[in-house]
Amino acid sequence: MIEPLPNRSPPRGARPIQALVFDTFGTVVDFYHPMKRQFEAFAEARGVSCDAGKMAVDWRTAYIFSTFAQATEESEFRPLREINRDNLAVVMAAEFPAAVSAAELDELAGVWQRLEPWPDAVNGLQRLKRSAIIAPLSNGNFSDMVRLSRYAGLPWDVVLGASISGFYKPHPRTYLESVAALALQPEDVCMVAAHQMDLAFAAGHGLQTAFVSRPNEFGGPVKPAESEPNRNYIGAAEVHVEGDWTYCASDFEDLAQQVEQDLLA
Amino acid sequence: MIEPLPNRSPPRGARPIQALVFDTFGTVVDFYHPMKRQFEAFAEARGVSCDAGKMAVDWRTAYIFSTFAQATEESEFRPLREINRDNLAVVMAAEFPAAVSAAELDELAGVWQRLEPWPDAVNGLQRLKRSAIIAPLSNGNFSDMVRLSRYAGLPWDVVLGASISGFYKPHPRTYLESVAALALQPEDVCMVAAHQMDLAFAAGHGLQTAFVSRPNEFGGPVKPAESEPNRNYIGAAEVHVEGDWTYCASDFEDLAQQVEQDLLA
Repeated sequence: MIEPLPNRSPPRGARPIQALVFDTFGTVVDFYHPMKRQFEAFAEARGVSCDAGKMAVDWRTAYIFSTFAQATEESEFRPLREINRDNLAVVMAAEFPAAVSAAELDELAGVWQRLEPWPDAVNGLQRLKRSAIIAPLSNGNFSDMVRLSRYAGLPWDVVLGASISGFYKPHPRTYLESVAALALQPEDVCMVAAHQMDLAFAAGHGLQTAFVSRPNEFGGPVKPAESEPNRNYIGAAEVHVEGDWTYCASDFEDLAQQVEQDLLA
Repeated sequence: MIEPLPNRSPPRGARPIQALVFDTFGTVVDFYHPMKRQFEAFAEARGVSCDAGKMAVDWRTAYIFSTFAQATEESEFRPLREINRDNLAVVMAAEFPAAVSAAELDELAGVWQRLEPWPDAVNGLQRLKRSAIIAPLSNGNFSDMVRLSRYAGLPWDVVLGASISGFYKPHPRTYLESVAALALQPEDVCMVAAHQMDLAFAAGHGLQTAFVSRPNEFGGPVKPAESEPNRNYIGAAEVHVEGDWTYCASDFEDLAQQVEQDLLA
Protein backbone atom coordinates (compact mmCIF):
# COMPACT_ATOMS: atom_id res chain seq x y z
CA MET A 1 0.00 0.00 0.00
CA ILE A 2 1.18 3.51 -0.84
CA GLU A 3 0.30 6.28 1.60
CA PRO A 4 0.69 10.03 1.01
CA LEU A 5 3.66 11.69 2.68
CA PRO A 6 3.03 14.71 4.96
CA ASN A 7 1.96 17.85 3.05
CA ARG A 8 5.04 19.72 1.85
CA SER A 9 3.34 22.30 -0.42
CA PRO A 10 4.87 25.78 -0.15
CA PRO A 11 2.67 28.56 1.29
CA ARG A 12 0.27 30.04 -1.25
CA GLY A 13 1.94 32.78 -3.26
CA ALA A 14 5.45 31.94 -2.03
CA ARG A 15 6.38 30.26 -5.33
CA PRO A 16 4.82 31.55 -8.55
CA ILE A 17 3.11 28.71 -10.38
CA GLN A 18 4.96 27.83 -13.59
CA ALA A 19 2.89 24.81 -14.55
CA LEU A 20 -0.52 23.38 -13.73
CA VAL A 21 -0.94 19.62 -14.04
CA PHE A 22 -4.38 18.06 -14.11
CA ASP A 23 -6.04 14.89 -13.09
CA THR A 24 -8.24 14.36 -16.11
CA PHE A 25 -10.94 11.67 -15.70
CA GLY A 26 -13.54 13.33 -13.48
CA THR A 27 -11.64 16.60 -13.04
CA VAL A 28 -11.44 17.86 -16.63
CA VAL A 29 -13.93 15.54 -18.28
CA ASP A 30 -17.16 13.89 -17.19
CA PHE A 31 -16.89 10.12 -17.48
CA TYR A 32 -20.11 9.17 -15.72
CA HIS A 33 -22.73 10.58 -18.08
CA PRO A 34 -21.09 9.53 -21.39
CA MET A 35 -20.58 6.00 -20.01
CA LYS A 36 -24.11 5.85 -18.62
CA ARG A 37 -25.63 7.00 -21.92
CA GLN A 38 -23.61 4.43 -23.82
CA PHE A 39 -24.69 1.56 -21.57
CA GLU A 40 -28.30 2.69 -21.86
CA ALA A 41 -28.07 2.74 -25.66
CA PHE A 42 -26.45 -0.69 -25.69
CA ALA A 43 -29.20 -2.17 -23.53
CA GLU A 44 -31.91 -0.49 -25.57
CA ALA A 45 -30.51 -1.91 -28.79
CA ARG A 46 -30.68 -5.37 -27.22
CA GLY A 47 -34.18 -4.76 -25.93
CA VAL A 48 -33.12 -5.33 -22.33
CA SER A 49 -32.66 -3.10 -19.32
CA CYS A 50 -29.61 -2.43 -17.19
CA ASP A 51 -28.51 -0.23 -14.30
CA ALA A 52 -26.39 1.96 -16.53
CA GLY A 53 -25.36 4.39 -13.80
CA LYS A 54 -24.14 1.59 -11.55
CA MET A 55 -22.24 0.08 -14.47
CA ALA A 56 -20.45 3.39 -15.06
CA VAL A 57 -19.49 3.62 -11.40
CA ASP A 58 -18.41 -0.03 -11.25
CA TRP A 59 -16.25 0.37 -14.34
CA ARG A 60 -14.62 3.51 -13.02
CA THR A 61 -14.09 1.88 -9.62
CA ALA A 62 -12.41 -1.10 -11.25
CA TYR A 63 -10.11 1.33 -13.07
CA ILE A 64 -9.11 2.95 -9.78
CA PHE A 65 -8.33 -0.40 -8.16
CA SER A 66 -6.45 -1.72 -11.22
CA THR A 67 -4.20 1.30 -11.55
CA PHE A 68 -3.67 1.68 -7.80
CA ALA A 69 -2.62 -1.97 -7.65
CA GLN A 70 -0.12 -1.47 -10.47
CA ALA A 71 1.39 1.48 -8.58
CA THR A 72 1.51 -0.39 -5.28
CA GLU A 73 2.89 -3.63 -6.67
CA GLU A 74 5.07 -1.93 -9.27
CA SER A 75 3.78 -4.57 -11.65
CA GLU A 76 4.05 -4.54 -15.42
CA PHE A 77 2.75 -1.36 -17.08
CA ARG A 78 -0.16 -2.51 -19.20
CA PRO A 79 -1.74 0.07 -21.53
CA LEU A 80 -4.74 1.69 -19.89
CA ARG A 81 -6.95 0.80 -22.83
CA GLU A 82 -6.30 -2.88 -22.15
CA ILE A 83 -6.98 -2.49 -18.44
CA ASN A 84 -10.24 -0.69 -19.11
CA ARG A 85 -11.32 -3.21 -21.70
CA ASP A 86 -10.67 -6.14 -19.38
CA ASN A 87 -12.58 -4.45 -16.56
CA LEU A 88 -15.43 -3.66 -18.95
CA ALA A 89 -15.75 -7.33 -19.86
CA VAL A 90 -16.40 -8.11 -16.18
CA VAL A 91 -18.90 -5.26 -15.81
CA MET A 92 -20.76 -6.34 -18.94
CA ALA A 93 -20.83 -10.02 -17.97
CA ALA A 94 -22.40 -9.10 -14.64
CA GLU A 95 -25.21 -7.16 -16.29
CA PHE A 96 -25.84 -8.87 -19.63
CA PRO A 97 -26.45 -12.61 -19.59
CA ALA A 98 -26.06 -12.89 -23.38
CA ALA A 99 -22.52 -12.79 -24.72
CA VAL A 100 -20.92 -9.48 -25.62
CA SER A 101 -18.62 -9.74 -28.63
CA ALA A 102 -15.01 -8.60 -28.76
CA ALA A 103 -15.97 -5.97 -31.33
CA GLU A 104 -18.72 -4.67 -29.05
CA LEU A 105 -16.28 -4.46 -26.15
CA ASP A 106 -13.76 -2.59 -28.31
CA GLU A 107 -16.39 -0.10 -29.37
CA LEU A 108 -17.72 0.44 -25.85
CA ALA A 109 -14.24 0.73 -24.34
CA GLY A 110 -13.50 3.56 -26.76
CA VAL A 111 -15.79 5.82 -24.73
CA TRP A 112 -12.73 6.78 -22.66
CA GLN A 113 -11.64 8.74 -25.72
CA ARG A 114 -15.08 10.34 -26.11
CA LEU A 115 -15.65 11.79 -22.64
CA GLU A 116 -17.22 15.24 -22.36
CA PRO A 117 -15.37 18.24 -20.92
CA TRP A 118 -17.10 19.90 -17.97
CA PRO A 119 -18.74 23.12 -19.23
CA ASP A 120 -16.01 25.38 -17.82
CA ALA A 121 -13.08 23.12 -18.72
CA VAL A 122 -12.03 24.25 -22.19
CA ASN A 123 -12.40 27.97 -21.55
CA GLY A 124 -10.78 27.58 -18.15
CA LEU A 125 -7.81 25.69 -19.55
CA GLN A 126 -7.34 28.26 -22.31
CA ARG A 127 -7.32 31.00 -19.70
CA LEU A 128 -4.94 29.13 -17.35
CA LYS A 129 -2.63 28.45 -20.30
CA ARG A 130 -1.98 32.18 -20.53
CA SER A 131 -0.53 32.08 -17.00
CA ALA A 132 1.39 28.80 -16.99
CA ILE A 133 2.18 25.55 -18.79
CA ILE A 134 -0.83 23.21 -18.68
CA ALA A 135 -0.60 19.43 -18.94
CA PRO A 136 -2.55 16.36 -17.91
CA LEU A 137 -0.94 14.37 -15.10
CA SER A 138 -3.31 11.52 -15.61
CA ASN A 139 -3.35 7.76 -15.77
CA GLY A 140 -4.37 8.17 -19.40
CA ASN A 141 -1.60 7.00 -21.71
CA PHE A 142 -0.26 9.15 -24.54
CA SER A 143 -2.48 7.38 -27.06
CA ASP A 144 -5.61 7.80 -24.91
CA MET A 145 -4.96 11.40 -23.99
CA VAL A 146 -4.20 12.56 -27.49
CA ARG A 147 -7.48 11.19 -28.81
CA LEU A 148 -9.52 12.39 -25.84
CA SER A 149 -7.94 15.84 -26.09
CA ARG A 150 -8.73 16.12 -29.78
CA TYR A 151 -12.32 15.00 -29.13
CA ALA A 152 -12.88 17.30 -26.17
CA GLY A 153 -10.78 20.24 -27.43
CA LEU A 154 -8.35 20.25 -24.50
CA PRO A 155 -5.52 22.68 -25.35
CA TRP A 156 -2.64 21.01 -23.48
CA ASP A 157 0.92 22.20 -23.97
CA VAL A 158 2.26 18.68 -23.44
CA VAL A 159 0.98 15.34 -22.16
CA LEU A 160 2.55 14.11 -18.91
CA GLY A 161 1.49 11.45 -16.40
CA ALA A 162 1.63 7.68 -16.31
CA SER A 163 3.17 7.33 -19.79
CA ILE A 164 6.18 9.34 -18.63
CA SER A 165 6.93 7.16 -15.65
CA GLY A 166 5.60 3.75 -16.62
CA PHE A 167 3.66 3.72 -13.34
CA TYR A 168 0.08 4.67 -12.61
CA LYS A 169 -0.83 7.20 -9.96
CA PRO A 170 -0.26 7.42 -7.08
CA HIS A 171 3.23 6.03 -7.68
CA PRO A 172 5.72 8.76 -6.64
CA ARG A 173 7.57 8.57 -9.95
CA THR A 174 4.44 9.59 -11.87
CA TYR A 175 4.33 12.92 -10.06
CA LEU A 176 8.08 13.46 -9.83
CA GLU A 177 9.02 12.46 -13.38
CA SER A 178 6.23 14.58 -14.81
CA VAL A 179 7.58 17.59 -12.93
CA ALA A 180 11.15 16.76 -13.96
CA ALA A 181 10.07 16.51 -17.61
CA LEU A 182 9.28 20.23 -17.41
CA ALA A 183 12.68 21.00 -15.82
CA LEU A 184 10.83 22.49 -12.84
CA GLN A 185 10.83 21.94 -9.09
CA PRO A 186 7.70 20.37 -7.52
CA GLU A 187 7.06 23.60 -5.60
CA ASP A 188 6.64 25.47 -8.91
CA VAL A 189 3.94 23.11 -10.15
CA CYS A 190 0.28 22.94 -9.06
CA MET A 191 -1.68 19.68 -9.18
CA VAL A 192 -5.37 20.20 -9.97
CA ALA A 193 -7.88 17.49 -9.07
CA ALA A 194 -11.42 16.83 -7.95
CA HIS A 195 -10.02 13.94 -5.90
CA GLN A 196 -8.32 14.87 -2.67
CA MET A 197 -6.36 11.64 -2.41
CA ASP A 198 -4.58 12.66 -5.62
CA LEU A 199 -3.86 16.08 -4.10
CA ALA A 200 -2.57 14.50 -0.90
CA PHE A 201 -0.01 12.47 -2.85
CA ALA A 202 1.03 15.52 -4.88
CA ALA A 203 1.36 17.67 -1.74
CA GLY A 204 3.51 14.98 -0.16
CA HIS A 205 6.02 15.51 -2.97
CA GLY A 206 5.98 19.29 -2.52
CA LEU A 207 3.62 20.28 -5.33
CA GLN A 208 1.08 23.03 -4.84
CA THR A 209 -2.51 21.78 -4.99
CA ALA A 210 -5.88 22.96 -6.27
CA PHE A 211 -9.13 21.24 -5.32
CA VAL A 212 -11.89 21.78 -7.87
CA SER A 213 -15.11 20.15 -6.79
CA ARG A 214 -17.12 18.32 -9.44
CA PRO A 215 -20.43 17.67 -7.67
CA ASN A 216 -21.94 15.93 -10.71
CA GLU A 217 -19.02 13.54 -11.12
CA PHE A 218 -21.20 10.55 -10.19
CA GLY A 219 -24.53 11.92 -11.31
CA GLY A 220 -25.69 12.97 -7.88
CA PRO A 221 -24.34 11.13 -4.82
CA VAL A 222 -21.76 13.10 -2.89
CA LYS A 223 -19.20 11.84 -0.44
CA PRO A 224 -20.12 12.53 3.20
CA ALA A 225 -17.99 14.97 5.17
CA GLU A 226 -14.98 13.50 6.92
CA SER A 227 -16.65 13.82 10.30
CA GLU A 228 -19.54 11.61 9.24
CA PRO A 229 -19.40 7.82 9.56
CA ASN A 230 -19.16 5.37 6.67
CA ARG A 231 -16.86 7.57 4.65
CA ASN A 232 -17.08 6.52 1.06
CA TYR A 233 -14.08 7.19 -1.14
CA ILE A 234 -15.29 5.89 -4.47
CA GLY A 235 -18.46 6.42 -6.44
CA ALA A 236 -19.45 9.73 -4.82
CA ALA A 237 -18.40 13.29 -5.68
CA GLU A 238 -16.11 15.10 -3.24
CA VAL A 239 -17.73 18.37 -2.22
CA HIS A 240 -16.18 18.94 1.22
CA VAL A 241 -12.64 20.31 1.57
CA GLU A 242 -10.63 17.73 3.49
CA GLY A 243 -7.07 19.01 3.29
CA ASP A 244 -4.87 22.08 3.44
CA TRP A 245 -4.85 22.69 -0.31
CA THR A 246 -3.18 25.71 -1.89
CA TYR A 247 -6.36 26.57 -3.82
CA CYS A 248 -10.00 25.57 -3.58
CA ALA A 249 -12.09 26.56 -6.59
CA SER A 250 -15.61 26.03 -7.85
CA ASP A 251 -14.42 25.50 -11.43
CA PHE A 252 -11.49 26.21 -13.76
CA GLU A 253 -12.56 29.81 -14.42
CA ASP A 254 -12.56 30.47 -10.68
CA LEU A 255 -9.16 28.78 -10.38
CA ALA A 256 -7.80 30.88 -13.25
CA GLN A 257 -8.91 34.05 -11.52
CA GLN A 258 -7.25 33.07 -8.25
CA VAL A 259 -4.01 32.02 -9.94
CA GLU A 260 -3.89 35.23 -11.97
CA GLN A 261 -4.35 37.31 -8.81
CA ASP A 262 -1.46 35.55 -7.08
CA LEU A 263 0.83 35.88 -10.09
CA LEU A 264 0.11 39.61 -10.27
CA ALA A 265 0.66 40.10 -6.52
CA MET B 1 27.53 4.35 -36.96
CA ILE B 2 23.80 4.04 -37.63
CA GLU B 3 22.69 3.74 -41.25
CA PRO B 4 19.13 3.97 -42.58
CA LEU B 5 17.45 0.70 -43.48
CA PRO B 6 16.01 0.28 -47.00
CA ASN B 7 12.89 2.39 -47.62
CA ARG B 8 9.80 0.49 -46.41
CA SER B 9 7.20 3.29 -46.71
CA PRO B 10 3.84 2.11 -48.07
CA PRO B 11 2.76 3.45 -51.47
CA ARG B 12 1.20 6.91 -51.30
CA GLY B 13 -2.49 6.69 -50.47
CA ALA B 14 -2.36 2.99 -49.55
CA ARG B 15 -2.58 3.76 -45.83
CA PRO B 16 -4.52 6.83 -44.69
CA ILE B 17 -2.29 9.04 -42.55
CA GLN B 18 -3.43 9.02 -38.93
CA ALA B 19 -0.59 11.08 -37.48
CA LEU B 20 2.03 13.48 -38.78
CA VAL B 21 5.26 13.74 -36.79
CA PHE B 22 7.66 16.59 -37.34
CA ASP B 23 11.31 17.28 -37.17
CA THR B 24 11.23 20.67 -35.52
CA PHE B 25 14.54 22.58 -35.55
CA GLY B 26 14.84 23.80 -39.13
CA THR B 27 11.63 22.17 -40.36
CA VAL B 28 9.03 23.93 -38.21
CA VAL B 29 11.12 26.74 -36.79
CA ASP B 30 13.99 28.84 -38.10
CA PHE B 31 17.02 28.48 -35.84
CA TYR B 32 19.57 30.27 -37.99
CA HIS B 33 18.23 33.82 -38.01
CA PRO B 34 17.25 34.04 -34.31
CA MET B 35 20.68 32.65 -33.33
CA LYS B 36 22.49 34.94 -35.73
CA ARG B 37 20.65 38.01 -34.46
CA GLN B 38 21.41 37.06 -30.88
CA PHE B 39 25.15 36.65 -31.56
CA GLU B 40 25.20 39.97 -33.40
CA ALA B 41 23.53 41.70 -30.46
CA PHE B 42 25.93 40.10 -28.01
CA ALA B 43 28.95 41.23 -30.01
CA GLU B 44 27.57 44.71 -30.43
CA ALA B 45 26.99 45.06 -26.69
CA ARG B 46 30.65 44.17 -26.17
CA GLY B 47 31.77 46.55 -28.89
CA VAL B 48 33.40 43.77 -30.89
CA SER B 49 32.58 41.98 -34.11
CA CYS B 50 31.89 38.32 -34.84
CA ASP B 51 30.87 36.07 -37.71
CA ALA B 52 27.40 35.55 -36.27
CA GLY B 53 26.10 33.44 -39.16
CA LYS B 54 29.05 31.05 -38.92
CA MET B 55 28.53 30.81 -35.15
CA ALA B 56 24.89 29.81 -35.68
CA VAL B 57 25.91 27.13 -38.17
CA ASP B 58 28.74 25.87 -35.96
CA TRP B 59 26.46 25.63 -32.95
CA ARG B 60 23.79 23.78 -34.90
CA THR B 61 26.42 21.47 -36.42
CA ALA B 62 27.77 20.66 -32.96
CA TYR B 63 24.21 19.80 -31.89
CA ILE B 64 23.86 17.36 -34.79
CA PHE B 65 27.14 15.63 -33.98
CA SER B 66 26.43 15.49 -30.23
CA THR B 67 22.98 13.96 -30.61
CA PHE B 68 24.04 11.61 -33.43
CA ALA B 69 26.90 10.38 -31.24
CA GLN B 70 24.51 9.70 -28.35
CA ALA B 71 22.29 7.66 -30.65
CA THR B 72 25.21 5.74 -32.14
CA GLU B 73 26.99 5.03 -28.87
CA GLU B 74 23.76 4.64 -26.88
CA SER B 75 25.47 6.75 -24.27
CA GLU B 76 23.79 8.46 -21.30
CA PHE B 77 20.81 10.64 -22.22
CA ARG B 78 21.86 14.15 -21.22
CA PRO B 79 19.19 16.87 -21.44
CA LEU B 80 19.41 18.72 -24.75
CA ARG B 81 19.66 22.06 -22.98
CA GLU B 82 22.90 20.88 -21.32
CA ILE B 83 24.29 19.59 -24.61
CA ASN B 84 23.50 22.86 -26.35
CA ARG B 85 24.94 24.94 -23.54
CA ASP B 86 28.20 22.98 -23.54
CA ASN B 87 28.50 23.30 -27.30
CA LEU B 88 27.74 27.00 -27.07
CA ALA B 89 30.63 27.50 -24.63
CA VAL B 90 32.99 26.11 -27.26
CA VAL B 91 31.52 28.26 -30.04
CA MET B 92 31.73 31.37 -27.88
CA ALA B 93 35.30 30.68 -26.75
CA ALA B 94 36.38 30.38 -30.37
CA GLU B 95 34.93 33.77 -31.28
CA PHE B 96 35.22 35.90 -28.14
CA PRO B 97 38.65 36.14 -26.49
CA ALA B 98 37.20 37.71 -23.32
CA ALA B 99 35.45 35.38 -20.91
CA VAL B 100 31.74 34.70 -21.29
CA SER B 101 29.99 34.25 -17.95
CA ALA B 102 27.82 31.33 -16.95
CA ALA B 103 24.81 33.64 -16.76
CA GLU B 104 25.51 34.93 -20.28
CA LEU B 105 25.76 31.35 -21.57
CA ASP B 106 22.47 30.43 -19.88
CA GLU B 107 20.74 33.42 -21.42
CA LEU B 108 22.14 32.79 -24.90
CA ALA B 109 21.41 29.06 -24.77
CA GLY B 110 17.76 29.88 -24.08
CA VAL B 111 17.38 30.95 -27.71
CA TRP B 112 16.45 27.34 -28.53
CA GLN B 113 13.16 28.10 -26.77
CA ARG B 114 12.71 31.36 -28.70
CA LEU B 115 13.08 30.18 -32.29
CA GLU B 116 10.74 31.62 -34.92
CA PRO B 117 8.18 29.51 -36.78
CA TRP B 118 8.51 29.60 -40.56
CA PRO B 119 5.76 31.88 -41.95
CA ASP B 120 3.53 28.97 -43.04
CA ALA B 121 4.20 26.77 -40.01
CA VAL B 122 1.47 27.73 -37.53
CA ASN B 123 -1.35 27.97 -40.07
CA GLY B 124 -0.14 24.83 -41.79
CA LEU B 125 -0.03 22.87 -38.53
CA GLN B 126 -3.50 24.06 -37.58
CA ARG B 127 -4.78 22.89 -40.94
CA LEU B 128 -2.96 19.53 -40.79
CA LYS B 129 -4.32 19.01 -37.26
CA ARG B 130 -7.81 18.83 -38.73
CA SER B 131 -6.73 15.77 -40.76
CA ALA B 132 -4.53 13.89 -38.29
CA ILE B 133 -2.74 13.89 -34.96
CA ILE B 134 0.26 16.27 -35.09
CA ALA B 135 3.31 15.92 -32.85
CA PRO B 136 6.98 16.86 -32.85
CA LEU B 137 9.31 13.90 -33.30
CA SER B 138 12.30 15.99 -32.42
CA ASN B 139 15.47 15.85 -30.39
CA GLY B 140 13.96 18.61 -28.27
CA ASN B 141 13.14 17.32 -24.80
CA PHE B 142 9.71 17.79 -23.22
CA SER B 143 10.90 20.84 -21.32
CA ASP B 144 12.41 22.45 -24.44
CA MET B 145 9.51 21.68 -26.71
CA VAL B 146 6.83 22.90 -24.34
CA ARG B 147 8.51 26.30 -23.99
CA LEU B 148 9.32 26.59 -27.69
CA SER B 149 5.78 25.61 -28.61
CA ARG B 150 4.28 28.20 -26.29
CA TYR B 151 6.64 30.87 -27.66
CA ALA B 152 6.05 30.00 -31.32
CA GLY B 153 2.37 29.05 -31.02
CA LEU B 154 2.78 25.48 -32.25
CA PRO B 155 -0.54 23.65 -31.68
CA TRP B 156 0.77 20.11 -31.05
CA ASP B 157 -1.58 17.40 -29.85
CA VAL B 158 1.21 15.73 -27.89
CA VAL B 159 5.00 15.94 -27.67
CA LEU B 160 6.89 12.84 -28.86
CA GLY B 161 10.53 12.29 -29.83
CA ALA B 162 13.75 11.85 -27.89
CA SER B 163 12.12 12.28 -24.47
CA ILE B 164 9.94 9.26 -25.14
CA SER B 165 12.80 6.93 -25.97
CA GLY B 166 15.74 8.32 -24.04
CA PHE B 167 17.71 8.31 -27.30
CA TYR B 168 18.33 11.07 -29.78
CA LYS B 169 17.53 10.68 -33.46
CA PRO B 170 18.34 8.73 -35.51
CA HIS B 171 18.19 5.94 -32.92
CA PRO B 172 15.50 3.48 -34.08
CA ARG B 173 13.73 3.58 -30.72
CA THR B 174 13.05 7.30 -31.09
CA TYR B 175 10.97 6.71 -34.21
CA LEU B 176 9.43 3.42 -33.12
CA GLU B 177 8.52 4.35 -29.55
CA SER B 178 7.00 7.63 -30.70
CA VAL B 179 4.78 5.71 -33.11
CA ALA B 180 3.94 3.12 -30.43
CA ALA B 181 3.00 5.90 -27.99
CA LEU B 182 0.16 6.74 -30.38
CA ALA B 183 -0.92 3.08 -30.58
CA LEU B 184 -0.40 3.24 -34.35
CA GLN B 185 1.59 1.27 -36.90
CA PRO B 186 4.58 3.04 -38.56
CA GLU B 187 2.79 2.84 -41.92
CA ASP B 188 -0.02 5.03 -40.56
CA VAL B 189 2.35 7.81 -39.52
CA CYS B 190 4.08 10.38 -41.75
CA MET B 191 7.44 11.88 -40.78
CA VAL B 192 7.84 15.49 -41.96
CA ALA B 193 11.31 17.00 -42.27
CA ALA B 194 13.46 19.41 -44.24
CA HIS B 195 16.33 16.95 -43.73
CA GLN B 196 16.32 13.91 -45.95
CA MET B 197 18.57 11.87 -43.70
CA ASP B 198 15.82 12.06 -41.07
CA LEU B 199 13.29 10.90 -43.67
CA ALA B 200 15.56 8.05 -44.76
CA PHE B 201 15.69 6.72 -41.19
CA ALA B 202 11.91 7.09 -40.80
CA ALA B 203 11.25 5.35 -44.13
CA GLY B 204 13.52 2.51 -43.06
CA HIS B 205 11.11 1.83 -40.19
CA GLY B 206 8.09 1.91 -42.50
CA LEU B 207 6.83 5.43 -41.84
CA GLN B 208 5.49 7.54 -44.66
CA THR B 209 7.62 10.60 -45.38
CA ALA B 210 7.15 14.23 -46.39
CA PHE B 211 10.03 16.40 -47.55
CA VAL B 212 9.41 20.11 -47.03
CA SER B 213 12.26 22.20 -48.33
CA ARG B 214 13.36 25.15 -46.21
CA PRO B 215 15.70 27.03 -48.57
CA ASN B 216 16.42 29.76 -46.01
CA GLU B 217 17.38 27.33 -43.27
CA PHE B 218 21.00 28.48 -43.33
CA GLY B 219 20.43 32.02 -44.55
CA GLY B 220 21.28 31.33 -48.16
CA PRO B 221 23.70 28.49 -48.97
CA VAL B 222 22.00 25.44 -50.38
CA LYS B 223 23.25 21.89 -50.55
CA PRO B 224 24.46 20.88 -54.04
CA ALA B 225 22.50 18.21 -55.89
CA GLU B 226 23.52 14.63 -55.24
CA SER B 227 25.18 14.39 -58.62
CA GLU B 228 27.55 17.25 -57.85
CA PRO B 229 30.85 16.69 -56.09
CA ASN B 230 31.67 17.82 -52.55
CA ARG B 231 28.27 16.99 -51.25
CA ASN B 232 27.73 18.94 -48.07
CA TYR B 233 25.30 17.55 -45.54
CA ILE B 234 25.45 20.19 -42.86
CA GLY B 235 25.20 23.96 -42.95
CA ALA B 236 23.35 24.18 -46.26
CA ALA B 237 19.63 23.96 -47.00
CA GLU B 238 18.34 20.89 -48.84
CA VAL B 239 16.48 21.99 -51.95
CA HIS B 240 16.91 18.93 -54.20
CA VAL B 241 14.77 15.83 -53.72
CA GLU B 242 17.14 12.95 -53.01
CA GLY B 243 14.83 10.09 -52.07
CA ASP B 244 11.58 8.35 -52.85
CA TRP B 245 9.50 10.29 -50.32
CA THR B 246 5.74 9.88 -50.01
CA TYR B 247 5.23 13.65 -50.27
CA CYS B 248 7.32 16.57 -51.44
CA ALA B 249 5.90 19.96 -50.51
CA SER B 250 6.94 23.58 -50.75
CA ASP B 251 5.56 24.36 -47.28
CA PHE B 252 3.07 23.09 -44.68
CA GLU B 253 0.06 24.60 -46.47
CA ASP B 254 1.03 22.73 -49.62
CA LEU B 255 1.52 19.55 -47.60
CA ALA B 256 -1.89 19.99 -45.96
CA GLN B 257 -3.54 20.30 -49.35
CA GLN B 258 -1.87 17.12 -50.64
CA VAL B 259 -2.69 15.15 -47.49
CA GLU B 260 -6.32 16.31 -47.57
CA GLN B 261 -6.65 15.23 -51.21
CA ASP B 262 -5.35 11.74 -50.41
CA LEU B 263 -7.59 11.34 -47.37
CA LEU B 264 -10.62 12.31 -49.46
CA ALA B 265 -9.66 9.96 -52.30
